[in-house]
Amino acid sequence: MSVESHAIEVETAGHSQVLDVTEQVVQCVDGGAISCGIATVFVLGSTAAITTTEFEPGLANHDLAAALEKVAPVSGRYLHEETWHDDNGHAHVRAVFIGPSLTVPIVDRRLQLGTWQQIVLLDFDTRPRSRRILVQVIGE
Amino acid sequence: MSVESHAIEVETAGHSQVLDVTEQVVQCVDGGAISCGIATVFVLGSTAAITTTEFEPGLANHDLAAALEKVAPVSGRYLHEETWHDDNGHAHVRAVFIGPSLTVPIVDRRLQLGTWQQIVLLDFDTRPRSRRILVQVIGE
Amino acid sequence: MSVESHAIEVETAGHSQVLDVTEQVVQCVDGGAISCGIATVFVLGSTAAITTTEFEPGLANHDLAAALEKVAPVSGRYLHEETWHDDNGHAHVRAVFIGPSLTVPIVDRRLQLGTWQQIVLLDFDTRPRSRRILVQVIGE
Repeated sequence: MSVESHAIEVETAGHSQVLDVTEQVVQCVDGGAISCGIATVFVLGSTAAITTTEFEPGLANHDLAAALEKVAPVSGRYLHEETWHDDNGHAHVRAVFIGPSLTVPIVDRRLQLGTWQQIVLLDFDTRPRSRRILVQVIGE
Repeated sequence: MSVESHAIEVETAGHSQVLDVTEQVVQCVDGGAISCGIATVFVLGSTAAITTTEFEPGLANHDLAAALEKVAPVSGRYLHEETWHDDNGHAHVRAVFIGPSLTVPIVDRRLQLGTWQQIVLLDFDTRPRSRRILVQVIGE
Repeated sequence: MSVESHAIEVETAGHSQVLDVTEQVVQCVDGGAISCGIATVFVLGSTAAITTTEFEPGLANHDLAAALEKVAPVSGRYLHEETWHDDNGHAHVRAVFIGPSLTVPIVDRRLQLGTWQQIVLLDFDTRPRSRRILVQVIGE
């Protein structure tokens, strides 16, 4: 049993952009010695999230943001914005709904995902950001 | 320290059906040698999700779907459907909100859950599906 | 490789209170011998959730609850309440949306979180509760 620790740096456009980071996570597993275990994928920060989805433009660029707009509209009123005099209250709320961590099984040296299931970073902040994603691979 | 890798196959009805899979996950732990650690439960696919809830009919068959209908209505407009000429755009969005992975502690050889807290699979797709759930048990 | 198992007890006010439990989780890591790995944070029960957010009053005491009110209003109609003759249907639904488990990387003996990213317990139940949070630290 061992742990392999990786960091991925991603440049985003913010504004609820969805980025496919599957290949970078796969490389963390492929470059290591663990054939059976788990990979935990975690994004630092409170206005971004990690999950899986089918990464295709209609869903990633429109449908997810449209649903999140119902829960936390960009132009809604947020006490967070009144506290800090900024404009990203909706970004914090959206990040809480989706969450910062994901754990994916590794079997036979391969990350286990469905055919149409990609690992994605969602950046809800209102400006371009450099995001740091940590991948902890644990197993044997 | 070791890893024990399990797969559970479940037949679902789709249409936001909620299925209690607690007993199958408990059997993964009971049949193994790990007394302290974690069990990661992960569903393959991008129109299903895993979480915990109290598994009782009112909540599982009505209340959860009613809340998800507000976020991602079955009859809403989804670019995903226009891309693929299918009808499961809401299923993808709902899966993103709930998420595909769950990690539950194991202490004294027992999966740690509240009295009214069951592990459930939610299948949001618009047809019956065979779902594959992976359970990775890690610990000592 | 080893596992260190911790339990945190927290008294809450319920009613979607958000509590910062970062320091308690940090102490689980600081008091142990694991320098590289993961910490899984899990809340027992089906009306509470664990995630990360910026813990500041506007967001924690108002904005998150306002968004959850759109999905699962306190005064909505829930079959769960008709089944059990209670009033916490919205609490169960909110807990499903946020989820009970979170897994955070540990690198160089430190829990990896963003500067404005705290670990929080959300208690959605309709009365004060004693909550039990389990923290499983796995690594080497």
